[in-house]
Amino acid sequence: MKETYLLRTDGSRCLYETYARDLPIIDFHNHVSVADIAENRRYENLTELWLAPDPYKHRLMRICGGAEHFITGDASPYEKMEAFCEIFPLLAGNPVYDWSRMELSRIFGIRDMPCKETAKRIYDRCGEMLRSPEYSTNAILSRFGVEYQSPVASLLDDLSLFDGQTVAPSLRGDNLLEPTAGFLAELKRVCNREITNQDSYIEAIGVLLDRFATAGCRFADHALDAGFFERDADGKKREILTWLGIEYAKRGWTLLLHLDAKRKTSTRLARVAGPAGGYAVVGGSFSIASVCDLLNQMEERGGLPDTVLFPLNMNDQVPLAVMQGSFSEDGIASKVQLGPAWWWCDHALGIENTLNCIASFGVVSQFLGMTTDSRSILSFVRHDYFRRLLCSWLDGKNRTGEWDLPVEVQGEIVRKICYQNAKLKIQR
Amino acid sequence: MKETYLLRTDGSRCLYETYARDLPIIDFHNHVSVADIAENRRYENLTELWLAPDPYKHRLMRICGGAEHFITGDASPYEKMEAFCEIFPLLAGNPVYDWSRMELSRIFGIRDMPCKETAKRIYDRCGEMLRSPEYSTNAILSRFGVEYQSPVASLLDDLSLFDGQTVAPSLRGDNLLEPTAGFLAELKRVCNREITNQDSYIEAIGVLLDRFATAGCRFADHALDAGFFERDADGKKREILTWLGIEYAKRGWTLLLHLDAKRKTSTRLARVAGPAGGYAVVGGSFSIASVCDLLNQMEERGGLPDTVLFPLNMNDQVPLAVMQGSFSEDGIASKVQLGPAWWWCDHALGIENTLNCIASFGVVSQFLGMTTDSRSILSFVRHDYFRRLLCSWLDGKNRTGEWDLPVEVQGEIVRKICYQNAKLKIQR
Amino acid sequence: MKETYLLRTDGSRCLYETYARDLPIIDFHNHVSVADIAENRRYENLTELWLAPDPYKHRLMRICGGAEHFITGDASPYEKMEAFCEIFPLLAGNPVYDWSRMELSRIFGIRDMPCKETAKRIYDRCGEMLRSPEYSTNAILSRFGVEYQSPVASLLDDLSLFDGQTVAPSLRGDNLLEPTAGFLAELKRVCNREITNQDSYIEAIGVLLDRFATAGCRFADHALDAGFFERDADGKKREILTWLGIEYAKRGWTLLLHLDAKRKTSTRLARVAGPAGGYAVVGGSFSIASVCDLLNQMEERGGLPDTVLFPLNMNDQVPLAVMQGSFSEDGIASKVQLGPAWWWCDHALGIENTLNCIASFGVVSQFLGMTTDSRSILSFVRHDYFRRLLCSWLDGKNRTGEWDLPVEVQGEIVRKICYQNAKLKIQR
Repeated sequence: MKETYLLRTDGSRCLYETYARDLPIIDFHNHVSVADIAENRRYENLTELWLAPDPYKHRLMRICGGAEHFITGDASPYEKMEAFCEIFPLLAGNPVYDWSRMELSRIFGIRDMPCKETAKRIYDRCGEMLRSPEYSTNAILSRFGVEYQSPVASLLDDLSLFDGQTVAPSLRGDNLLEPTAGFLAELKRVCNREITNQDSYIEAIGVLLDRFATAGCRFADHALDAGFFERDADGKKREILTWLGIEYAKRGWTLLLHLDAKRKTSTRLARVAGPAGGYAVVGGSFSIASVCDLLNQMEERGGLPDTVLFPLNMNDQVPLAVMQGSFSEDGIASKVQLGPAWWWCDHALGIENTLNCIASFGVVSQFLGMTTDSRSILSFVRHDYFRRLLCSWLDGKNRTGEWDLPVEVQGEIVRKICYQNAKLKIQR
Repeated sequence: MKETYLLRTDGSRCLYETYARDLPIIDFHNHVSVADIAENRRYENLTELWLAPDPYKHRLMRICGGAEHFITGDASPYEKMEAFCEIFPLLAGNPVYDWSRMELSRIFGIRDMPCKETAKRIYDRCGEMLRSPEYSTNAILSRFGVEYQSPVASLLDDLSLFDGQTVAPSLRGDNLLEPTAGFLAELKRVCNREITNQDSYIEAIGVLLDRFATAGCRFADHALDAGFFERDADGKKREILTWLGIEYAKRGWTLLLHLDAKRKTSTRLARVAGPAGGYAVVGGSFSIASVCDLLNQMEERGGLPDTVLFPLNMNDQVPLAVMQGSFSEDGIASKVQLGPAWWWCDHALGIENTLNCIASFGVVSQFLGMTTDSRSILSFVRHDYFRRLLCSWLDGKNRTGEWDLPVEVQGEIVRKICYQNAKLKIQR
Repeated sequence: MKETYLLRTDGSRCLYETYARDLPIIDFHNHVSVADIAENRRYENLTELWLAPDPYKHRLMRICGGAEHFITGDASPYEKMEAFCEIFPLLAGNPVYDWSRMELSRIFGIRDMPCKETAKRIYDRCGEMLRSPEYSTNAILSRFGVEYQSPVASLLDDLSLFDGQTVAPSLRGDNLLEPTAGFLAELKRVCNREITNQDSYIEAIGVLLDRFATAGCRFADHALDAGFFERDADGKKREILTWLGIEYAKRGWTLLLHLDAKRKTSTRLARVAGPAGGYAVVGGSFSIASVCDLLNQMEERGGLPDTVLFPLNMNDQVPLAVMQGSFSEDGIASKVQLGPAWWWCDHALGIENTLNCIASFGVVSQFLGMTTDSRSILSFVRHDYFRRLLCSWLDGKNRTGEWDLPVEVQGEIVRKICYQNAKLKIQR
């Protein structure tokens, strides 16, 4: 993979090298294992690091008709490696094709194309390197320049593993909207108070939100899956979410709304591959008006947190980019905004669409850029992928005379999108 | 701003200069103040002309976190100018960034980039020019080459200010679908007849439609906002709209349907910035099938007017472009058609998407081109913006060998889209 | 029309000439007349071959305001030809503009642009050629290199005209979901068994499915038109479709789902132009979640056939491309997949969008490529149109360094998409 990958012009390379490449990474929403960081986990072989924690790769193997035995089954680590490499050249076009090569290139210096012929060599060379402490979890993270990340944690999780500085928790709030009896019992125990009605429920949660704040939490996310608003016909979940939003606003947190995933597709695949097995689809039943009304309700009732919208349907980037102009607050840039291209949309097509939409319908210099939402620590290469695409896109706009910006202003926009805008959300 | 702005090739420049640039403007739907035209209003300062009547600019200031004091508040005209110029370079990508520079360049000859450093100079120079009669409302309009425009008027409005030739009213029909008691009383008074049931209501409206026709009206618009069809469960509004459509058809008017705006977003912003403050969003609940059934109902019951569809969700340009082939009339080109990129979609991305959709799904040479839908008389620069994009797009199609059209045929298409097709609607 | 049409680079031309151009055609879903093939029909004049069986062309004439007299009315064949040629240059941008020229060029060697001036010459020259046996139906088909096609047939149709090798029936299953009394009576007669309940209905259908299988059937299609899921509130149609899907799976057939057409638009046009007159529109009321649940129900209850999804709304190519990862089977590539750009979407814009979506959200090398879904035997030029676009697209990805594939691998992808992937479905 060339140094100039995705950077076809002098202008884009200059932007990338001067302003983008060396910026630290802020990854404000991901699923990295805090335990792995705390114990500075080491990896036995490439499969354990490169394939096992990456449902995107499993998904593509299934699309190519690969047998589950070689994906999540009992095949040996090397057999799994070989099965993936065998189909690899046919994956071109999918972002996994790009990311996979970037992962090997950036961390292991491997520039060979993975394929049937190279599988063994790549596996062995990387296996050797993995025996060195330079390939521990934290060594890899520091090689990526990760300044701050906030893996998700649930309200009752133990936060002792977070250091609050480079690794802070972000709250995954989904289980709060419809609390189970077990959750309520545990909440009662942890807070040491009775929970008899909504007020006492809210008060108990508030205690734990403060605990999250102390641990450095700055972000809370809620998944409004496909059918959320239809299923919440009586508005009870929206009621709790409104109250939570107000609490997040009080603490200066940013609310992340992940919209329209349909996680139940093939029951068979759910049995075979588990709940996060890479088979989710776009629901297509998501109501923009309802999201807008929900945010307005927070604003009217007590306070709207800064909000970032992540649609799973790439088409929805268009109307949601418009919403950047529908809420505002003096002194806050982009009170409500379309977020980074999310999940299946996190590829050149989706990223360029995000940039074009925010630019055309709003103000792209206020964009939050990139977050991985990933379980794999190799996924931080996606920041580099994003930065290359951004520099190419920005250079294109100016090279054609459409924008006419001096290169310093272009650089300022790069810095804001890749780093500064997210930094401001952390410092609120 | 260069003369060749958006025109990167010789072919596009040739098309633009030979066929597009000097065509008169027909702006068949806007919100320009007829009073300003009638009294040939003069402007005290640049803020009054350039910022105050432009909610698009206010919206971007809010997105950047600007304080309302400097947007619609009590700050002095120059303070508002400075606040806008300060954020200006960060707006690149938004069409307001392009239009604003075109407005200054076209009318004032200002080629400086607005920014903190240039704000005072631009403000003072333009202020000086505004003292000359060459910068009165009508002087500006004639500099743009506006041959015909039809600002909206409501049915009971006084039409005496319209001259019927260059400024004709277009009917804004929204208050007719659910008439208030006040409206009915006034209608009764003006028409001097009893209104006791639907028949007499319809008859009274017909009298006033004739008055509009006499004043030169050729267009009627209706906003089918987000949720229109759901809220009209009993079909009563559709019933009246059907009857109105038939009346428009009788008079040879063209019906403009503005689809899917959600005007209630932040209640706070509505309080602060008023009802048209630039915070509307896409509703996303718009049913193509319902629009299609409505048009068919008009056709079956008495007559379908020529109809132009304006979706606020840019995505809907795709399916609505298909509808160009679903209704027809001998001798009428594009009986029903997708209209110009509307409101938040009126930028390079939206315009090119419109062109690509109408071309791919229908017949782009029958396209109606551009109308501003704006309150600001400087917005006529958007016709120039559109024409540049059109010439570039058309040249691109032919330069790559995809279309193979002789330049004269390209020129004919330019002329039809920029001028002739709209002219035909006026002359029906 | 140049040999290099749509092939602007050396790389794309090389891919096209080396790998794409000469591949045989597999057209797995169309509406070609088997009777015409069986009797090797000859054509009296160009209108009969080129215009009469092509509602796409009729639609464009109506959009241009053409009188029905010259479209489907009583005008002479030559008058119809002239009327079409007269508007032809104004159709640029629509795929019919490209296909029409390709049809004349490929079959008749005509390179003149159809227009008022050339109409007579083209008509006469082609008329002369049509008198030669080299322009019989089968001679034309063999000139296109059609290896296999499967025109649709209904369950009770006579299959004796299909040869099962190059022309096999594909089942059009729409009348099975809500059988009429007439259908049931005929089914009873043909199968010679009582139909008293769902079980016996299903059994009777099974007998005829076997007859289709014997005649070479490998594909079954169902149109889930706009409103299908709303109208099937009690799920009865889905129940039958689920059972049918399982039966298709048993026989190794592939299920084609055509989604979201609204065929009732202008009642007037339906009267004038008949049921398939080219005025259908996108319904816009199609639920991805419901399709997904339907497929899961088949899989859980007995077996999911390979499934291809055809949305009429080009926007839905985005979320449906994601579904490639939601169902899988060991050894089967692309168990469920987005199909070729369908009907109004079958143009450069739609094809490139399909390629970009499948590539970005799934695995494009497993894509099924192209099928015409057409009534006209000249429509096989669309395979050439598709192949040119594919080669240009693929070359672009590699030329820019985004993909880095050796030309042989590119060629393998071309071969899979244009031929091999469809071939595998036939051989299942």
